[in-house]
Amino acid sequence: MGKALIIGAGGVASVVVHKCCQNPEVFEEICIASRTVSKCDALKEKLKEGKTKISTASLDADNTEEVIALINQFKPDIVINVALPYQDLTIMDACLATKVDYLDTANYEPLDTAKFEYKWQWAYKEKFEKAGITAVLGCGFDPGVTGVFSAFAMKHYFDEIKQIDILDANAGDHGYPFATNFNPEINIREITANGSYFEKGQFIETEPLEIKRVYNFPEIGNKDIYLLHHEEMESLALNIKGIEKIRFWMTFSEKYITHLRVLENVGMTSIEPIDFEGQKIVPLQFLKAVLPDPASLGPRTKGKTNIGCIYQGTKNGEDKTYYVYNVCDHEECYKEVGSQAISYTTGVPAMIGAMMVLQKKWKKPGVFNVEEFDPDPFMEALNKWGLPWKEEFAPTLVD
Amino acid sequence: MGKALIIGAGGVASVVVHKCCQNPEVFEEICIASRTVSKCDALKEKLKEGKTKISTASLDADNTEEVIALINQFKPDIVINVALPYQDLTIMDACLATKVDYLDTANYEPLDTAKFEYKWQWAYKEKFEKAGITAVLGCGFDPGVTGVFSAFAMKHYFDEIKQIDILDANAGDHGYPFATNFNPEINIREITANGSYFEKGQFIETEPLEIKRVYNFPEIGNKDIYLLHHEEMESLALNIKGIEKIRFWMTFSEKYITHLRVLENVGMTSIEPIDFEGQKIVPLQFLKAVLPDPASLGPRTKGKTNIGCIYQGTKNGEDKTYYVYNVCDHEECYKEVGSQAISYTTGVPAMIGAMMVLQKKWKKPGVFNVEEFDPDPFMEALNKWGLPWKEEFAPTLVD
Repeated sequence: MGKALIIGAGGVASVVVHKCCQNPEVFEEICIASRTVSKCDALKEKLKEGKTKISTASLDADNTEEVIALINQFKPDIVINVALPYQDLTIMDACLATKVDYLDTANYEPLDTAKFEYKWQWAYKEKFEKAGITAVLGCGFDPGVTGVFSAFAMKHYFDEIKQIDILDANAGDHGYPFATNFNPEINIREITANGSYFEKGQFIETEPLEIKRVYNFPEIGNKDIYLLHHEEMESLALNIKGIEKIRFWMTFSEKYITHLRVLENVGMTSIEPIDFEGQKIVPLQFLKAVLPDPASLGPRTKGKTNIGCIYQGTKNGEDKTYYVYNVCDHEECYKEVGSQAISYTTGVPAMIGAMMVLQKKWKKPGVFNVEEFDPDPFMEALNKWGLPWKEEFAPTLVD
Repeated sequence: MGKALIIGAGGVASVVVHKCCQNPEVFEEICIASRTVSKCDALKEKLKEGKTKISTASLDADNTEEVIALINQFKPDIVINVALPYQDLTIMDACLATKVDYLDTANYEPLDTAKFEYKWQWAYKEKFEKAGITAVLGCGFDPGVTGVFSAFAMKHYFDEIKQIDILDANAGDHGYPFATNFNPEINIREITANGSYFEKGQFIETEPLEIKRVYNFPEIGNKDIYLLHHEEMESLALNIKGIEKIRFWMTFSEKYITHLRVLENVGMTSIEPIDFEGQKIVPLQFLKAVLPDPASLGPRTKGKTNIGCIYQGTKNGEDKTYYVYNVCDHEECYKEVGSQAISYTTGVPAMIGAMMVLQKKWKKPGVFNVEEFDPDPFMEALNKWGLPWKEEFAPTLVD
């Protein structure tokens, strides 16, 4: 059916490549491009036996001209951006210049701020409309599937949705007292950033980890959940008409929070170099060298994730609640694609979203968040491609 | 009255020197000796205005011949050993060779084990008796004052002491989330070593920090206390006739324990070098470089220590309890001698013990723990020299 240029060669990109190769009718040909071409070549080597034709390329995605040149050479039908969020805009510029559809999994973030906002990418709406091409923004799990769930709930179960609670639980255990999946700096930011939720037309800020609840997740059990800011609330607040309240909750264990806080307290997460035996060393860099290598976590992580949304609203004048979620098993993901569930739950929806575009099911000119498309074919594809969902019609609510 | 050779130039030595100089009638002349003579010179510079005559010397206390040579040159009446506990035996050997009295504050510890035991020093008993000289072992606060308290309780208040609870509380706050007074490795050992207590003729081991209570300390309030092994229990078990139970308790805040445990968990307290950017770095060394300089803690530590003993026994056939303790204020200590209460409470008793020997109040041939001397003049001196004590006759007991 088509050709996809996949930019990035990290954990999520690896899942996207694996899933595209499981789906050669749609993804006849892919090109994997990243700054470190050896990582792309390693992925190609692993998957070369399949029907999908694979090529690789060295690419600096910060450089729009380089991206344009690669698009002109490979001639993809869609660009799947699973590189760094700092690179969203340069890649979107290249898509505009070459009139190729675009999809990403996380919204643009300027390098110098820690602001998650869609405004920079939404500003491309008119340009994409004029060019007659489609941009699908935030098509991972959250954002991504959470938006599809919301469109699905709206389409089939509600006349009006008044409240959405997004619940993201990771009950994975790697067996180390402490390790981080990625940059500890980002983990620190998660727990030290202010939270926020949407209520009656505005976002209300909270102190970091100020609002905590315990939720009994299906197939996982009781977990501490904390209210955080998360990017999909921004688009859902606009796209779900009449919505009054949206909250995003993520699980953190007490142990995890304690470890991060202590390391922050003693200065081990600082990015300011200190003098050590006559040289300058950044404490965070040294900490990373002491902690387990994130790449070593995949094969040893056991347990499950559970990500889903609880909706409260009305149908035919009656109050109604609805919970839709996916449970994903770290070990099964690793067995299937060599990555655990965190990357899996982001990479699979990216592949599905690209498939939706290539199949013209999600094809309209402009820049869109996922809840602006028909959720039905995507929901069907989730069941087929490894992220089956379950429903409850009388779920426990978050108080 | 006499001349004292003070070996050591750390925090405790500095207090000893300050206190000797406040007491020139007894300490007419002192010599401060340590490997780093500049530290001794700095102390001399600070105190040269007083009546006590001060000299300094460079000394490697591991080398008995060097110690003998210095003693022969300076001709002290007593050697006050406030160097490292590894050096107790070489210094005792030098005292034997020159027939000079000896006093220390912590028992000998072989470099290669973490065993606190008096057996190595007690083995010198006969030699000191024959030489006609006195060795006073463990004359800091605990061990030290706790032994004097015990002899005092026995002499004045009890026919028989059945139980001693030694309670060591430090409610000092340096304002940092975490910092260590000395080597973090030693702090780690404190909380990871097995505890032990004496009961019915034997020592019973516990898991590290297994036994925890809360005690409401006079002038300090409620603190978590943990049962630890501590060296004075060994001598008290022998010297307090009929004693059935001895326990030693130390305060640790939950925060302190959490920080140490996390740092241990992530490997930051390890002494095994790791590879970091092409070189070998010991994580513990790097941690020390990140943590606040211990020398910076003195001027900013606020709050008090409370160290004392609770006795249970009988007098005239009736049950009796007695609590004697000292409360010491970090800021006042710092104002007086430039060290906070941890060093102050160890250094003052060392000066007093040396004064007892010079005044012939504690002068008998042999090797002794402090509870083997008459406690009365020492108790009087504590009130005079900065460590006043208080008594309670119906204290709350540790359950």
